[in-house]
Amino acid sequence: MCEANAYWTRDDREELIMEAVDTIEPEGDDGWRLVGIFGDQKSIRGRIKGMHLVDHKILFEAHTA
Amino acid sequence: MCEANAYWTRDDREELIMEAVDTIEPEGDDGWRLVGIFGDQKSIRGRIKGMHLVDHKILFEAHTA
Repeated sequence: MCEANAYWTRDDREELIMEAVDTIEPEGDDGWRLVGIFGDQKSIRGRIKGMHLVDHKILFEAHTA
Repeated sequence: MCEANAYWTRDDREELIMEAVDTIEPEGDDGWRLVGIFGDQKSIRGRIKGMHLVDHKILFEAHTA
C-alpha cells in the first residue's frame, strides 16, 4: 500500500495531520480534502509545500496573510 | 517503491506527463516541479485535480482562463 502521511510544516517542524492518506483533492479555493485508506476524511486549509512519495510524506503549510 | 505517475486530465481522458514521480513541489504561482525516482525533472503549469496514492496517480489539469 502506498498511502502517505500528511503533515503541517511549521518552523521546520512537522506536525501530523492524518495518517494513511489515499486521496487528496482540492476543496474550494484554498483547501484540500484528505481521504484515508479506511474512508476517514479531513478537510484542511493551506497549501502544498511538497510531496515526497517514496518517503510517504505530503507536507502542507498554512496560508500566509 | 511508492512513486506515482503524473497525468494531465483533459475531457475525461488521462495523458501521461511523467512516470515514477517521487517529489512534487510548487514552482512559482501556478506550476509544479516533478522529480522522478532517477532524478529526472519536469516543470509544468497547472493545478492538481486529485491524487490517488494507492492507485499511484497524480492528476493535473490545465489552468482555465
